[in-house]
Amino acid sequence: MKVIEGGVTAAKGFEAAGVEANIKYQNRKDMALIYSTTPCQAAGTFTTNVVKAAPVLWDKDIVENSPFAQAVVVNAGVANAGTGVQGMAYCKEEADAASELLHIPQNAVLIGSTGVIGMQIPIDRIKEGIKLLAAAKADTLEAGHTAAEAIMTTDTHRKEIAVRFLVDGTEVTLGGMCKGSGMIHPNMCTMLSYITTDAAISKTLLQEALSASIQDSYNMVSVDGDTSTNDTCLVLANGLAGNPQITEKGEAYQAFCEALDYVNTYLAKQMAADGEGATALFEATVYHAATKQDARILAKSVISSNLSKAAIYGHDANGGRFLCALGYSGVHFNPDKVDLFIESKAGKIQIFQDGAALDYSEEEATKILSEPEVTVLADMKMGEETATAWGCDLTYDYVKINADYRS
Amino acid sequence: MKVIEGGVTAAKGFEAAGVEANIKYQNRKDMALIYSTTPCQAAGTFTTNVVKAAPVLWDKDIVENSPFAQAVVVNAGVANAGTGVQGMAYCKEEADAASELLHIPQNAVLIGSTGVIGMQIPIDRIKEGIKLLAAAKADTLEAGHTAAEAIMTTDTHRKEIAVRFLVDGTEVTLGGMCKGSGMIHPNMCTMLSYITTDAAISKTLLQEALSASIQDSYNMVSVDGDTSTNDTCLVLANGLAGNPQITEKGEAYQAFCEALDYVNTYLAKQMAADGEGATALFEATVYHAATKQDARILAKSVISSNLSKAAIYGHDANGGRFLCALGYSGVHFNPDKVDLFIESKAGKIQIFQDGAALDYSEEEATKILSEPEVTVLADMKMGEETATAWGCDLTYDYVKINADYRS
Repeated sequence: MKVIEGGVTAAKGFEAAGVEANIKYQNRKDMALIYSTTPCQAAGTFTTNVVKAAPVLWDKDIVENSPFAQAVVVNAGVANAGTGVQGMAYCKEEADAASELLHIPQNAVLIGSTGVIGMQIPIDRIKEGIKLLAAAKADTLEAGHTAAEAIMTTDTHRKEIAVRFLVDGTEVTLGGMCKGSGMIHPNMCTMLSYITTDAAISKTLLQEALSASIQDSYNMVSVDGDTSTNDTCLVLANGLAGNPQITEKGEAYQAFCEALDYVNTYLAKQMAADGEGATALFEATVYHAATKQDARILAKSVISSNLSKAAIYGHDANGGRFLCALGYSGVHFNPDKVDLFIESKAGKIQIFQDGAALDYSEEEATKILSEPEVTVLADMKMGEETATAWGCDLTYDYVKINADYRS
Repeated sequence: MKVIEGGVTAAKGFEAAGVEANIKYQNRKDMALIYSTTPCQAAGTFTTNVVKAAPVLWDKDIVENSPFAQAVVVNAGVANAGTGVQGMAYCKEEADAASELLHIPQNAVLIGSTGVIGMQIPIDRIKEGIKLLAAAKADTLEAGHTAAEAIMTTDTHRKEIAVRFLVDGTEVTLGGMCKGSGMIHPNMCTMLSYITTDAAISKTLLQEALSASIQDSYNMVSVDGDTSTNDTCLVLANGLAGNPQITEKGEAYQAFCEALDYVNTYLAKQMAADGEGATALFEATVYHAATKQDARILAKSVISSNLSKAAIYGHDANGGRFLCALGYSGVHFNPDKVDLFIESKAGKIQIFQDGAALDYSEEEATKILSEPEVTVLADMKMGEETATAWGCDLTYDYVKINADYRS
């Protein structure tokens, strides 16, 4: 497997576009399209929030009940959540408009929205945007970049990646883009993430691969503990690579999963590092946990802790806060056994041994924590399982961005 | 029942003191003593964090196994958590010192610590402090104030209250003090809260009353989602009021519980309003929930949400965030039925109806949310249960206070 340039247009037969539709933002692209020249198997995972945005309900229905999917229309600025019956009717209008312009069935059109909750989307401008998208779509790398830019809200940069790998001797490409910066604490999937691949793979295995992949990628990320109403991850596979269709769990499936995991993990980390107001990627790795689920919960508890996040912002090796966050995670362990370490490019030191603080160099600790990517490691000494979670520091700018997001 | 002046020294037979012991802070009081002239029934509730500070383990043992308690020694600055075997040995040294000076058994001495985790307490200065406390103790209101000031860490003011009520025609007094400003998300009880009463009540009923009382007081408060290693709530009852001992659940027990609930709820709200960096008390009331536990979880989810807290700071009626926080709480409900309101001294308006945003006056909403105490109300239309939770807004100053708390 190798990482190549590009995102959602890297795989054969996929086109994309990003346009200015003036949904809420001015003078920037705020609508995106992904389009496949041929029908795709589609898989998806969606927010576990009881309050689900209209496009989430729409996409869930398409993924579960449509014979195939062929396009995704996304807008930034307004989330179409907390919008009741009218919100669902607007989804249908969007799909109708895209169906007509792209000459594909209405139930092959997936929809994504992100932005303010509790506001109706401006349907006329959305429909104008769909016209512009249909006219602008292209299979170039540039078109992929533009789409990745158009789905951003408070993100500071676009997030995309593509990889190429072999399936039964055939070259297969898988690429993706995502957005996400606040209201990020995915529980099923993250804000918006779109993966395209030319792999031929059965719908069942595509869904299975995705459902497994999100557990240790998007679901291990938290920016602020708030699980969004719009979290969506979609994979479209059009089979144009020409590999023998993957229909069972052999080597070919493994190769596909490896590529999918790599892309999802990359995009998940990109979101954490670009968390609202963040100055650092804050990683926590828990090892020797009793179970895999314990390891995941413990790691996520550390990177979700406001006090730990504030300490990372202050470059403060406050091991007590990391230990405290492990302690209230709900996982059982022996606090008198835990070892803690901090690590970055600047080095690695141990700060707690068997649950008690060590006498380490504050100067060295500060140096380690002043890097843009820092890791807290916890050795639980309870078993053999490991997990890693990604978050970011808590800064003045996070508060600033969110104190008056709507205006 | 009436509210009277004072705190832990309001009830008969209780003395207190606060002194400067230079534990970590300079030029301020940082050690406190509560002392009863006669033996007390003691009840306590403690943190559910797997990582428990040494004084928590010490107090739990005293409450469960000692025939009576007679004093509490508290220090601020260092939490004596993450301190291993040495931390426990220091608790014993503290109790020994207090035992000798106060002429009470070692196992009648309760201990509390709050501050930095992962640092040993300076035992010599602590023992000097105990000497000063023993010499300074008095039964005056002023002594109670001083003790309430000495247990503060990042708190901006002392927190105390006292009430007087009748038990079987006898006047009984119950007072308390607490501290807590950060690492506040109690799960069993809050940071440090000490209640004294001259009521005569059996140990069993005292513990039962306390365990019930914390559910809708301290356990409904969150400042930052971080459940501390040191959360402790203790009640000492010395019986000097002279009422017939409360040994069963009749009218007398009810009167006692009412007073205890009032004092605990008052102190809990005080903590929320004085949350680190807070500019507003952020209250959430959920009604018509299916079960009491649902109501509690829903209310606490709203006031714990970073995005909701940041919106309160920005005086932004971001109903979508409140609805989103209800949605990821883990409680089942019908999102298409929820009504949301905001309320303060400046008025009350509805912002969501049946899960969809209403067209309300932004100007009026901002006016309502600009008060120092604001409430979000959610009508779930699922049943008959109600709960209220208290938090605070998320501000630049929270980040500032916590980015480098140790230095």
